[in-house]
Amino acid sequence: MENKQKAIGIIGGMGPMATADLFTKLIQMTDAACDAEHIHILIDNNPKTPDRTGAILHGTESPLPYLIRSANRLQTAGADFLLIPCITSHYFMQELTEQIEIPIMSMIEETAKQLQSSHIKKVVVLATDGTRKAKVFDRVFVKYGIEICYPCAEAQSALMDVIYKGVKAGSSAWDMTALNAEIDRLLSAGAEAVVLGCTELPLAAKMYGINGVLIDPTDILARAAIIYAGYKPKD
Amino acid sequence: MENKQKAIGIIGGMGPMATADLFTKLIQMTDAACDAEHIHILIDNNPKTPDRTGAILHGTESPLPYLIRSANRLQTAGADFLLIPCITSHYFMQELTEQIEIPIMSMIEETAKQLQSSHIKKVVVLATDGTRKAKVFDRVFVKYGIEICYPCAEAQSALMDVIYKGVKAGSSAWDMTALNAEIDRLLSAGAEAVVLGCTELPLAAKMYGINGVLIDPTDILARAAIIYAGYKPKD
Repeated sequence: MENKQKAIGIIGGMGPMATADLFTKLIQMTDAACDAEHIHILIDNNPKTPDRTGAILHGTESPLPYLIRSANRLQTAGADFLLIPCITSHYFMQELTEQIEIPIMSMIEETAKQLQSSHIKKVVVLATDGTRKAKVFDRVFVKYGIEICYPCAEAQSALMDVIYKGVKAGSSAWDMTALNAEIDRLLSAGAEAVVLGCTELPLAAKMYGINGVLIDPTDILARAAIIYAGYKPKD
Repeated sequence: MENKQKAIGIIGGMGPMATADLFTKLIQMTDAACDAEHIHILIDNNPKTPDRTGAILHGTESPLPYLIRSANRLQTAGADFLLIPCITSHYFMQELTEQIEIPIMSMIEETAKQLQSSHIKKVVVLATDGTRKAKVFDRVFVKYGIEICYPCAEAQSALMDVIYKGVKAGSSAWDMTALNAEIDRLLSAGAEAVVLGCTELPLAAKMYGINGVLIDPTDILARAAIIYAGYKPKD
């Protein structure tokens, strides 16, 4: 190893299953033949962090103080850099970065870089109302020349149900007809791929099925983090 | 809730997949309809902790100082009690308990209680050489009147390969013929169930298949921990 190996801190619990998904992907994507070749990972899975979409859209309690405390706990425990497996939380990224000492790797930036290197220029983004309203993807993707198509109002409402009443409520099955029809329409209109722009959606894709070529920011983040931590990802 | 809800700390990384397995089971077995109804869980997944079986059998570097540091990190971060998803590490349980301030819930004790309440009196235990040699199960199970049968030397060697060359090395398939034949022999001779006495084995059971009525200490620990933390487990 040319670099000193780094420990990863995960600000988690938003939601818990998305946190477990990132943790599992970090382990499975590391090229390791025994325990000791794996990454030291610290996780603060705090599901009591206030709802991010609520704070952005309706001014309910801000998650920012919780995110700062979590970041500090992880740094104290030994984390060298941080990951946040919750897309909507990236709205608070700049303020959070200014108030803590260690760097955070952005899922949005890493996803944009990956799309750019795959020459993908137009994508469907499936995200929460909070992420859309706050232009979390738009602000970053515009710098990389990537165009975003969002679902119509009716399909967006169906998408929020998939996230909150499906995955977060632990439902093992969910009717995806309306959302998938809208995805098909957007793909026919020129979108090249579908970004799973909420960390609950890779789980929804696996359990319920989502149409199209799927881009999973959790996968992309895991791979980038393994490399930055000084380890080798599996091919 | 009559009790104050507690935060769980997990001393993990031994191995990482066993840690992810316990984390996922804690989430999936909690009766929660939204993020905020889930448990605050802190994880120190440190795969650099020296090999437990090596320390017990061959006097290689002891994991105890690593376990103590991990316990202290988790307590500082806010954990109220600890879980260790590594059966072999339970050999160091008493020394560890004496050197830290918060309690540890034992997988071995919880498993014995569960077997006793199911009126099971004779079991096959699949465990590492270190766990067997150190009598980690024997010392506890004898108090509950539960008899243990271990695999013959040849099958035990096959079992160590399943754990180290199979699960820990990330193999997606493994030949279980020899081990399963020995399990069948022990079940025919009067054993009532098979205890997956190494936290890598629930993963081996899922990926490769293990014969018999399987008792998973990780499942049992997750359920007991949810209740002790002041939450409701799913039925």
